[in-house]
Formats: sequence, C-alpha cells, structure tokens
Amino acid sequence: MIKILGISGSLRAASVNTALLKAMAQVAHTDISFSLYGDLASVPLFNPDLEGHEAPAVHALRAALRDADAVVIASPEYAHGVTGVIKNALDWIVGSGELIDKPVGLLIASKRSIYAPEALRKTLAVMGASVIEGAYLALSINNNRATDVEILAERDTVTVLREVLNVLAAAVQTQSGAKAQEA
Amino acid sequence: MIKILGISGSLRAASVNTALLKAMAQVAHTDISFSLYGDLASVPLFNPDLEGHEAPAVHALRAALRDADAVVIASPEYAHGVTGVIKNALDWIVGSGELIDKPVGLLIASKRSIYAPEALRKTLAVMGASVIEGAYLALSINNNRATDVEILAERDTVTVLREVLNVLAAAVQTQSGAKAQEA
Repeated sequence: MIKILGISGSLRAASVNTALLKAMAQVAHTDISFSLYGDLASVPLFNPDLEGHEAPAVHALRAALRDADAVVIASPEYAHGVTGVIKNALDWIVGSGELIDKPVGLLIASKRSIYAPEALRKTLAVMGASVIEGAYLALSINNNRATDVEILAERDTVTVLREVLNVLAAAVQTQSGAKAQEA
Repeated sequence: MIKILGISGSLRAASVNTALLKAMAQVAHTDISFSLYGDLASVPLFNPDLEGHEAPAVHALRAALRDADAVVIASPEYAHGVTGVIKNALDWIVGSGELIDKPVGLLIASKRSIYAPEALRKTLAVMGASVIEGAYLALSINNNRATDVEILAERDTVTVLREVLNVLAAAVQTQSGAKAQEA
C-alpha cells in the first residue's frame, strides 16, 4: 500500500484546489491510500525562535509528511505568488526535513497561475524534495467553485488525476527498489 | 510630516531584517515619522471565507497601512522564496487595497537572497503598489545576528538607509504634488 498525502494551499471551504484533492482521493487505485491533510489552518506563522518548542499543529504536519510515501500539493496563486498558507507550512519543514527525497506532485487548478507553481517548484527543490515531472500539472478547471463531484464528472480531469497518482506511485516504487538494492 | 511604516518579514526576535528597520527608525530625518509594525505574528492565516469577518489583527494591519504615506518591507528569503509570514500578511491586503498607489521600498539584508525580492516585487506590483526603484536595495549585512546598534555603526549602511527614506519621502511628495494639481 502506497501512502500519498494531499495538501491544499487554500483554506477556502469551497477551494477548487481542495476539491481536486478530494476528487483524487476517490479515483485512487486500491493499492494507494490517499488522504487529504485537513488542518493546515492550525499551523501557526513560522518563527525560527520557536523551533524546538513547536505547536502541536506543527508536529502533526511533520508527522503526516513523514508518514507519507509521496505528497501532492494543490495550491492557488495569490497576487502572482504562492499562498502565504502553503509557504508558511513549508517554512516549518525546511529545518526538520520531512520532504527530503520525498516524491512530490504539484497540481495547479488554473493554467493562468504561472508564478506560484514555479516558486513552489524552486522552494521544494531547495528543500530536497523530488518534484516529479509527470506529476507537475496545470489543469483547466474553469469554474473555481467546482466541487469534487463536478470534477469527477469531467472525464479528462479524472484521467489526469489518475495519471498523477500512478506517476507518484511509480516514483515511490522506483525509490524503494533503489533503497533495497543499496541495502 | 511624512509617515513611513516598516514591516519585517521575519518573526525572529533577533532578525537582522527587523534590526535594519529599527536602525532606519533612528536615522530618519525629523520630517519623517518612521514606525515599525510590531504585530505581524498575530495576523491569522489568510482565508478568503473570513473576509468581512476578519480578526482584529487584520484590521490593525490594514489601518496601519492605510495611515502610512509609504511602506518599507525588509524580509529574509526562506527556501528560495518569500517568507510565509510576509506573503500571508500581503494576502489579506489584496482585496482591501491599502497598498494601491502606495510608495513601497524593499530592503533585502543579504545579497544572496535573489528569489524572495523578485517574488515580492511581482506581488506588490500586481497589488497596485508603487515599488520605488531607488528604495529597492539588497544590503550586505554579513552578520545575520547583527543588532540595530551594530548596523548603526556601519557608516555605509546608515547612508543607504537614509537614502531609502529620502527616496520614499520624495516619492510621497511627488505623489501629493500630483494629487494637488489634479484637485
């Protein structure tokens, strides 16, 4: 069983990025356990002085990332940049290193988002994450209020979501194969 | 009296970016009232669903920006990107518009920061802020634990801080002159 964790960069209840990840959970093959991280809202603003004395929400985020074999981030773009929400979450992970060598996919709900995906890719790369090319995709969800049910009704989008999961699962398997050979 | 508000993108107590702004407050000419925004730590994570029901800290940030004639942001770079702290604060301002046409300076404490300044400039530009070229500067503070007292002992840095304040003050005066002519 391959464990994939989805993280949405928006706290909006009707976020299309969150809906994409909810849809993804429903199209995952039976050998993939996909869960959506539900509590990014509780992660406090990053303060380096608090490292070593982190809030429980920071420990929970790190534990969920540590436990995942791969991660999918779906995030909107705010004002030509990353959302503060997703960057703040990542800022807490820089020092603790849960994303090092972790296969990461990036889903972008709008093809008009061009700054945030590149900024996230650069940040993830310097954090040591393995950003998987085939799982780095901008979709064309025209309705930014689309629900997971509406997304699941779009056959092309479902195909893309399945493909992203498969590419990530393959990356995890390749990685564990390489680790087994090293051992 | 020209009111300039300094905002640090780091919550670290010994942040060199905060120290730069504290030093700036001490070198400001008598016709400039410089204040450092002190409570970015209380700004909650941005959630579009909460617009219209914002926390008091969001109202306080917006009021301070509204009240300022110009703004100086000094922010570190985290993992090849903006700090979540500064981007989160800006995310709350996109809709309310306090930075529209506001002269903004950007101070970067390290010349090795190359991603965050460009990302901030793009975000500020799309938010309608007037990012002032002569007030967009990377300094070479080699000691990232430098205090404001240590910064004030460096004559070249003090010259740069004064210059940034003067360039911003001139931008404010040009702007109010243009507004007076329009009226």
